[in-house]
Amino acid sequence: MNPGGEYARDSRYITTRITADGRDGFPVEAGRYRLVVSRACPWASRAVIVRRLLGLERALPMAIAGPTHDERSWTFGLDPGGRDPVLGIERLQDAYLARDPGYDRGVTVPAIVDVTTGKVVTNDFAQITIDMSLEWAAHHRAGAPALYPAASRPEIDAVNEAVYKDVNNGVYRAGFAGSQKAYDVAYERLFARLGRLADRLERSRYLVGDTVTEADVRLFTTLVRFDAVYHGHFKCNRRKLAEMPVLWAYARDLFQTPGFGDTVDFDHIKRHYYVVHRDINPTGIVPVGPDLSNWLEPHDRAALGGTPFGDGTPPEPVAPEEAVPAGHSPLAA
Amino acid sequence: MNPGGEYARDSRYITTRITADGRDGFPVEAGRYRLVVSRACPWASRAVIVRRLLGLERALPMAIAGPTHDERSWTFGLDPGGRDPVLGIERLQDAYLARDPGYDRGVTVPAIVDVTTGKVVTNDFAQITIDMSLEWAAHHRAGAPALYPAASRPEIDAVNEAVYKDVNNGVYRAGFAGSQKAYDVAYERLFARLGRLADRLERSRYLVGDTVTEADVRLFTTLVRFDAVYHGHFKCNRRKLAEMPVLWAYARDLFQTPGFGDTVDFDHIKRHYYVVHRDINPTGIVPVGPDLSNWLEPHDRAALGGTPFGDGTPPEPVAPEEAVPAGHSPLAA
Repeated sequence: MNPGGEYARDSRYITTRITADGRDGFPVEAGRYRLVVSRACPWASRAVIVRRLLGLERALPMAIAGPTHDERSWTFGLDPGGRDPVLGIERLQDAYLARDPGYDRGVTVPAIVDVTTGKVVTNDFAQITIDMSLEWAAHHRAGAPALYPAASRPEIDAVNEAVYKDVNNGVYRAGFAGSQKAYDVAYERLFARLGRLADRLERSRYLVGDTVTEADVRLFTTLVRFDAVYHGHFKCNRRKLAEMPVLWAYARDLFQTPGFGDTVDFDHIKRHYYVVHRDINPTGIVPVGPDLSNWLEPHDRAALGGTPFGDGTPPEPVAPEEAVPAGHSPLAA
Repeated sequence: MNPGGEYARDSRYITTRITADGRDGFPVEAGRYRLVVSRACPWASRAVIVRRLLGLERALPMAIAGPTHDERSWTFGLDPGGRDPVLGIERLQDAYLARDPGYDRGVTVPAIVDVTTGKVVTNDFAQITIDMSLEWAAHHRAGAPALYPAASRPEIDAVNEAVYKDVNNGVYRAGFAGSQKAYDVAYERLFARLGRLADRLERSRYLVGDTVTEADVRLFTTLVRFDAVYHGHFKCNRRKLAEMPVLWAYARDLFQTPGFGDTVDFDHIKRHYYVVHRDINPTGIVPVGPDLSNWLEPHDRAALGGTPFGDGTPPEPVAPEEAVPAGHSPLAA
């Protein structure tokens, strides 16, 4: 929090990269690393979706932390014995401390851990998904889409920058504002940006080009949380997503596309935000609503042209061991 | 709060009545009493609406407390010098203490104060509006509606009881629940009741009979606050009112009826709930939303038959000194 009451995200991430050429000492290698996520977290959810879309499930196994955590760390409370079965740790913090015993920054997800040492390699969420697209290409499934195609990168980067500032991080700037003024500014920027995005998406099925890209993944992870947590808990309440017809149809279209909605756990999302943020929800009571059944309603976006995967194909259904638990989503009945 | 975490309203009110025959020592008399309200408060807003519908403005003048208050009392911060110009007090608590120096219950609105002594006569909100209809009849305007007609009383009472328990007070039981279970129960009862009310109102323009009654006033004061405060702040978020077509059209119909919407101050409503309830909104930050312009959209309820005032007439426009301030409502531009 800065003096004006503005929320400032700690963006000092561990920027070591896992690359095809291994120039940081961490070459891409199937089975060597473990992607640690929480399904609650929008930043981690980007990686979960991109991993699915690209078919990296076997090359880059995934550990799922529980939705709530204490002040210090995400934990593996969902696993038998409360321990990640591969890393053998109860708390993600242990992998950060293995990397740096003096580590005192955020214990964040997504994090990629080197299984051979138990040390975090990177938690640089913005780079992780790009590297999945470009560095892990040898392990992509047949038919994987190009989520970050060379010709579109400048446009994707520009969209991502605006979406990050005003939307992805904008909802946090509203929700964690320490002053009315800081909140008001974040709110206005958020809805102004959503308005411009709706103008763009009224004419175009996807944000950049005719297929799903990294830009869609990044906007989706905020939109899918909008009515469940940002609208009420973060006071982003000019309108619900369900009251913004273009963005709502766009979000439903993606939700119903294999690789997007099948990764979403609304139970984890709601429990995380409402239980962990005691500073803005002191009781820890989790709302029962909203009614989420409408995520499966027709979206009628196909008429705009474009296809989600271009010349590629949709990913296979989610493997049973990674399925969202029954009752946690309208797709998991 | 009881041991199960259920919110229990302190319903020990001062039940002295102002009646035509003066049997409690307080006869109806034009100009003798002062109705103290806050436009933020749903219980007080019932009295504000009924007073307007019946044309009691001159016989029963009104003092408007500010939207926020400290732990002890509503205050007259909106008046010049922070003092009610007639009662000469800064805090409503003074009128309660004048009545009973040992008064230790809630300093609530609506309250009716005897101007001749400065003492509170009653704060029994449920009785106040009924007495306005029945005991103050000699002072009603020409064309005033019968809000509590003898033939309909059993039905009005039955509707009011259910609406009070599950809706009027139900939203507070959800919002102030001290446990997840208590919240869950209140939420389910609220939306089950709203569903039954929607079934009733799908076929009938008003709750009881073909004209506006006390029952409509009591449901309206909760519905008009629903999206502004109860949906987010009190976690009554299965759907917004704007997403429940029958109740939303019903509420818009009443809002657009003289005597209802022209008493509503959304600014006071939002500031009261979000600023005063620091236990559930520690930052005191007031949401900018929701967008309220849709309250003036057509409601198409006239096709159901019925007329708001039956053989009577609508009230005159609000007197300038009682007008809702510009910008505080879509009706006050």
